[in-house]
Amino acid sequence: MVASVQSQSRLGFAGLGSMGHGMAMNLLSAGFHVTGFDPSLTARERFIREGGTVATTVATLCKDIEACMVMVANPSQADGLLFDPDGICDTIPRSSLLCIFSTLPPSYLQQLPQRLAAVGRSDIRLLDCPVSGGVIGATNGALTIIVGGSQDTLASCQHVLEAVSAPQRIFHCGDLGMGSMMKMLNQHLAGVHIVAAAEMLSFAKVMGLDARETYHQILDSQASSWIFKDRGLHMLDRDWPPASAVDIFVKDMGIVCDWADKTSVPCPIASQALLCFTECKARGHGRKDDAYVITIYENIIGTQITASNGTLAPGRNGKNSLGLPNAQLDDVIKYGTLVHLAATAECCRLAETVGLSPEVVYDLISGAAGSSAQFQDHFPSMAERAFTSDTGAVDNSPSGFDEFKSHMTRINRLMTSFNLPGRLFDAAYQILKGAHSRRRSGETSVAAIMRFWT
Amino acid sequence: MVASVQSQSRLGFAGLGSMGHGMAMNLLSAGFHVTGFDPSLTARERFIREGGTVATTVATLCKDIEACMVMVANPSQADGLLFDPDGICDTIPRSSLLCIFSTLPPSYLQQLPQRLAAVGRSDIRLLDCPVSGGVIGATNGALTIIVGGSQDTLASCQHVLEAVSAPQRIFHCGDLGMGSMMKMLNQHLAGVHIVAAAEMLSFAKVMGLDARETYHQILDSQASSWIFKDRGLHMLDRDWPPASAVDIFVKDMGIVCDWADKTSVPCPIASQALLCFTECKARGHGRKDDAYVITIYENIIGTQITASNGTLAPGRNGKNSLGLPNAQLDDVIKYGTLVHLAATAECCRLAETVGLSPEVVYDLISGAAGSSAQFQDHFPSMAERAFTSDTGAVDNSPSGFDEFKSHMTRINRLMTSFNLPGRLFDAAYQILKGAHSRRRSGETSVAAIMRFWT
Repeated sequence: MVASVQSQSRLGFAGLGSMGHGMAMNLLSAGFHVTGFDPSLTARERFIREGGTVATTVATLCKDIEACMVMVANPSQADGLLFDPDGICDTIPRSSLLCIFSTLPPSYLQQLPQRLAAVGRSDIRLLDCPVSGGVIGATNGALTIIVGGSQDTLASCQHVLEAVSAPQRIFHCGDLGMGSMMKMLNQHLAGVHIVAAAEMLSFAKVMGLDARETYHQILDSQASSWIFKDRGLHMLDRDWPPASAVDIFVKDMGIVCDWADKTSVPCPIASQALLCFTECKARGHGRKDDAYVITIYENIIGTQITASNGTLAPGRNGKNSLGLPNAQLDDVIKYGTLVHLAATAECCRLAETVGLSPEVVYDLISGAAGSSAQFQDHFPSMAERAFTSDTGAVDNSPSGFDEFKSHMTRINRLMTSFNLPGRLFDAAYQILKGAHSRRRSGETSVAAIMRFWT
Repeated sequence: MVASVQSQSRLGFAGLGSMGHGMAMNLLSAGFHVTGFDPSLTARERFIREGGTVATTVATLCKDIEACMVMVANPSQADGLLFDPDGICDTIPRSSLLCIFSTLPPSYLQQLPQRLAAVGRSDIRLLDCPVSGGVIGATNGALTIIVGGSQDTLASCQHVLEAVSAPQRIFHCGDLGMGSMMKMLNQHLAGVHIVAAAEMLSFAKVMGLDARETYHQILDSQASSWIFKDRGLHMLDRDWPPASAVDIFVKDMGIVCDWADKTSVPCPIASQALLCFTECKARGHGRKDDAYVITIYENIIGTQITASNGTLAPGRNGKNSLGLPNAQLDDVIKYGTLVHLAATAECCRLAETVGLSPEVVYDLISGAAGSSAQFQDHFPSMAERAFTSDTGAVDNSPSGFDEFKSHMTRINRLMTSFNLPGRLFDAAYQILKGAHSRRRSGETSVAAIMRFWT
């Protein structure tokens, strides 16, 4: 095994954006000698102000380092950094480590060894290690790291990765590219859940429910997700400084849809989410926080979700603020349950095409941004195709699939009767109908929604 | 056979809207004694001005008539007319004919005999006879009439129906309700084609093509439809006085989606079209012309399709106005081809659930508002499940399905790269991917897109 990168080692860190800055700071705190690089003067000055050292060219960044960390926004930035004249390939010392934290198409990572070889740099030890946990995770050194590459290379980076991640949150998924594949699955769910949060809160609003109280009740429900808790709050607080921008999800959902195209897997959920982010970008909001997608719906329904006009407070005792049974809240939760269930199934189908073990996918996503109540309950039985009620699948209603479907038919009508074009819900509902006729005898679990892909 | 309604007979006509007025005028011209009724004073005054006679109550409308024509907007208006005190059921002479021209849910017509019996009016001779052809067809007495009911009842109305329809355009589809079923299939296509027209013209615009020239070239192409020719012109001319309003298609696509729910048929195309009309209604444009859906897309892309900023004129010789090969125009046509192909397949699947003969569906829609180049080419082979190239199916490309699909994958990426959320195209593309894996060996025709519903 090659000597590992130890504390006191010299590292380069390229890409001091909101994620990269936090990670580089944590590496500094852990005792590494970190030189930062970013084309933005503002980013460099911030890093200096907080105690870092910067380089103004890639060549000086790479001088005498043992490892270079890369946290750029897209393949084109990565290409520039690596392959431009006087870039990393031209200047990094022999046998250096190169840790790519960015979320890039898996094929980019898979093709990189050949591209490095073509420029005579097969000596560079490459690690595919995208992260999950957002700016907060980066700042707190509490990221999940999703690794593809050799065991040896991973072992030699162990100290570096530990400095930026939460305990026990480094997952080795396989060879180069498999880290990015796993990240893609997590992003699939995270991206869909952002749009789902916007649709659920909009549905609550058009039915006259108070958004903030609905938010708290959804958190305890089958319609909850990590993203709903996080981005739902941005939506309620109209908090748009970008933690993660709309443009990021245009890219990441694009990676998902490209993969789905390559493998000919229908992905109506992911593509509706992509089109929602795309619309947000087309309207000029690409650099705003991804929670800004709520405004697409607000614009249609003609009111902000937090506006107090004619709102009922859903109550925890099954009655709303007028003392009436809280059917509306139940319907919002059912609405969200279907969307998250269908997203889980679509993710499970994509996971099969990727060739990752369902156990690893489950362990990782359960603790990452893609997690949801539906994912927790149904992913394992979906992966095993265990759709009968006595195989451990959890039903959401006593008589399972059929009753679930008839609720959703009613809710779909309800949604259009309120003039809400909930396209994510509709995509999920069409999947449910498609699964209905393809189910096999005895498959009464709602997890049988996965039969859509039969 | 009961005596038929002859010229000189006394008729009542309830509902003098843009359709009803034209039809009532043609009945007058044909020599019938027509009394009109409408709750709107404006509508009544117009009918009087043009030579008609009006009643101000339903009871006076029904006095001494032999037949009553009904052309109201929705089931609730029909209910009021029929079942309110002093309504048709209370006042129409025994054994009168009742011709319902409105587009209503098929179940409404199917349940009407029992409802009439329940109020002691089984004597009323009911005809389910929705029409196609729009305001122009109504004005010119050139409608298509789509009949459900007994042969006897149809025969006794023959002269009345001929006075408002084009030659050879009265189609008897079966029992009560089957006229409405057939109309539903026609509306499915017509409604989808309106949104398709908006998406095609928007796609052309974002790629820099001149909208008007693109329009003319699409008319000659595989992406053409009756609706595209008609509503495309409204879109280009920004001509919004309602020939048929957005609200009408919210209702009619709702009828389609309700039927698809009842029969558990996934209908991603119809439901995306419904949500587009729904969004238009939510934005306050329900009473505008249905072509107004173009503004939903214009609002997103930030420009009117007819704006002349940076447009290329696609040329008929395969080169555009800069003398370059006209790849963009080809791509717009491919885009529209897929949407119309998928719509044809979805319509074919719905037709099967309805139980209408494919020949009747084909004959009727071929000459009605739902027709398109794709419908003409592919509906018959879809109905026969004839998807191999040697069974008479027409391919759109030499190597059929696979090449078609790879074009569409490219165009889907192209669309999102221009930040256009073309949700109808995306729904069609997901159907194509779903059909891909379900095709049987040798099914190389693009008509095999119908395997999505396998």
